[in-house]
Amino acid sequence: MREVCVVGIGMSKWGEVWRRSLRQLFVDAAMEAIKDSGVDHLDSLYVGCMSSGMFVQQEHVGALCADYLGMAGLPAARVESACASGGIAVRQAFLEVASGASEIVMASGVEKMTDCSGDDATSALAGAADQEYEVFHGATFPGLYAMIAHAHMDRYGTTPEMLAAVSVKNHHNGAMNPVAQYPFEVSVDRVLGSVMVADPLHILDCSPITDGAAAVIVTSEEVARKLGKPYVKIIGSGLATDTIAIAQRDDITAIKSAGMALDRALKMTNRKLSDVQFAEMHDCFTIAEIVVMESIGLYKPGQAGPAVLAGETALDGKFPINSSGGLKSKGHPVGATGVAQVIEVFKQLTGRAEGGRQLPGSPKIGMTQNMGGTGASSAVHILEVA
Amino acid sequence: MREVCVVGIGMSKWGEVWRRSLRQLFVDAAMEAIKDSGVDHLDSLYVGCMSSGMFVQQEHVGALCADYLGMAGLPAARVESACASGGIAVRQAFLEVASGASEIVMASGVEKMTDCSGDDATSALAGAADQEYEVFHGATFPGLYAMIAHAHMDRYGTTPEMLAAVSVKNHHNGAMNPVAQYPFEVSVDRVLGSVMVADPLHILDCSPITDGAAAVIVTSEEVARKLGKPYVKIIGSGLATDTIAIAQRDDITAIKSAGMALDRALKMTNRKLSDVQFAEMHDCFTIAEIVVMESIGLYKPGQAGPAVLAGETALDGKFPINSSGGLKSKGHPVGATGVAQVIEVFKQLTGRAEGGRQLPGSPKIGMTQNMGGTGASSAVHILEVA
Repeated sequence: MREVCVVGIGMSKWGEVWRRSLRQLFVDAAMEAIKDSGVDHLDSLYVGCMSSGMFVQQEHVGALCADYLGMAGLPAARVESACASGGIAVRQAFLEVASGASEIVMASGVEKMTDCSGDDATSALAGAADQEYEVFHGATFPGLYAMIAHAHMDRYGTTPEMLAAVSVKNHHNGAMNPVAQYPFEVSVDRVLGSVMVADPLHILDCSPITDGAAAVIVTSEEVARKLGKPYVKIIGSGLATDTIAIAQRDDITAIKSAGMALDRALKMTNRKLSDVQFAEMHDCFTIAEIVVMESIGLYKPGQAGPAVLAGETALDGKFPINSSGGLKSKGHPVGATGVAQVIEVFKQLTGRAEGGRQLPGSPKIGMTQNMGGTGASSAVHILEVA
Repeated sequence: MREVCVVGIGMSKWGEVWRRSLRQLFVDAAMEAIKDSGVDHLDSLYVGCMSSGMFVQQEHVGALCADYLGMAGLPAARVESACASGGIAVRQAFLEVASGASEIVMASGVEKMTDCSGDDATSALAGAADQEYEVFHGATFPGLYAMIAHAHMDRYGTTPEMLAAVSVKNHHNGAMNPVAQYPFEVSVDRVLGSVMVADPLHILDCSPITDGAAAVIVTSEEVARKLGKPYVKIIGSGLATDTIAIAQRDDITAIKSAGMALDRALKMTNRKLSDVQFAEMHDCFTIAEIVVMESIGLYKPGQAGPAVLAGETALDGKFPINSSGGLKSKGHPVGATGVAQVIEVFKQLTGRAEGGRQLPGSPKIGMTQNMGGTGASSAVHILEVA
């Protein structure tokens, strides 16, 4: 397999974007990525999108996006793994370039969620869970993650304050991100005083419903060098699944797929987890960030919550997590999130993070962890400055 | 890129399968493919699925299928390009093995369509068209293909009898296929006397609504040789798109993506179209088979209809098309169709086609053409006996 690089990035505005449709959001991000990279054509396109059918009655999103980018003819396909769809798009672009079949591939993601009413968005998102054994019986994602949170609190003494600390940190970072949906600070008191969605998760423990798109240009190293701009290598790509229903798992206080995906990604490299300096992690709910920190082996079980409280994952901490603001503050257009995680790592590695959130000490290696459902799938990418 | 092979095949029963859910249909096909190939594990799984969200409110189908196959943990992803989703699954498996990232990958497809009411299935399928510029204004797929048929009849003198001849041929072949949904013969009179769906397309010009799954095992040639059974090489894989809305095209009597995809697939090989001896083609409507025959350069515009009438594409004709029965008789579970096309070519190349439909003369090279929507995407694969 040959070396694969990221050479350009683009994002649409994220938020409740009433005046842009799914295809327009995609084009906003895609055009920015093309301009940013300086490539003069694409060989192929992947679009991560979870549920355009249920959200806006549109499937066939790969062809749609190629068409509206003005590139009808371009090989294009949609990929889906619920909220890890963006991570899959990056992975497929990586594999296609690695195979030698293509030189320049766009990995993108898009979701238009707010054209659904609130109830419908929750129903559509429930498609990431087990329809027959979870959703049919009334489970929704806040409820499923609330069960995970309670189990974690019972076993390890994790507190609501620790969960809130994740939200406080991510909102602090997101306040410096110009595309974030909710770029404002919150306090622990404000999180704990916000409306309860599914005990112990308050609304400020939950990532929002978001319209948005993200795109990166993935190329061979030969092309990346010719473009003559700073670029980043994708040195590892790992994907893993788990049972779709949490009831089938031995232990719901860990998310096994996250650890397996990281191990598979690391196996492609000559690196260890301790070589990785920072991460974008899938904080769909505050408890998710804590569980993933432990599940990938960054902290022992029960120690992630105290570490967040102690500031160890803050911008100036020993292992910064979600410098972008994470899903919590930046927003979570489910198909785009995994691509946007790669964008933040690219920015940090090339010194382009805006608003004062650039990590100190010029980090060289970062990772993304993108997750579908309650962790029935996880995609991990490890990126290193070229 | 290294050589990539197909080493085993499996299909569920196709039809109105009330007692099997989406996940069970997948497992039926997947287990058969694993047994047929003799592999002892999988490295990765792709599931082609167009619209499980709108059909059965289930997304995250890659993880779901890995789980119910008893392989939770396995890297898995769903891919989608409307009715070409199965072709994309084969293509992604091809690229992953070609890249060297994996040795043994399952390419599968599944769709559970009859759990929708009739009206809903038509709505869900309309997600393959342009929601904003076609579907919103009332277009459905029978209507869109009827416009293509009328344009073709006006320009080239194609007749309803020529369209019916496609159906008659495909039902003749499908009557010999044990998994076909409608394994019976029809006559030209019966097609022309069947209820009109969208003039000039009668119900017997239209492929049916189908539940079903299909799976193939894709490996490196090294693994294929070790397994010690007859196998087939994938020598070319091509993917192309077109405008999603037919109103945006210069000419609706051709499907440009089919020709582009074939050209891209041939470019990977040292073969010409004239080296290809037979094909599985995307006959979602009878007119589609005729238009694709012309669009890939097999016949000059206007000559495909007369060629079908003359029996040139019959089992004993000079270029047999849809020996499986095609979408028309075998059925069209939209996500699975592209994989099932590869299965038929595999069977023909290895002498395993049942019921008397084995092609004479031991063909060496065959192709599949799988299409999304009105041709906004096409995936072509060229297979050669090893």
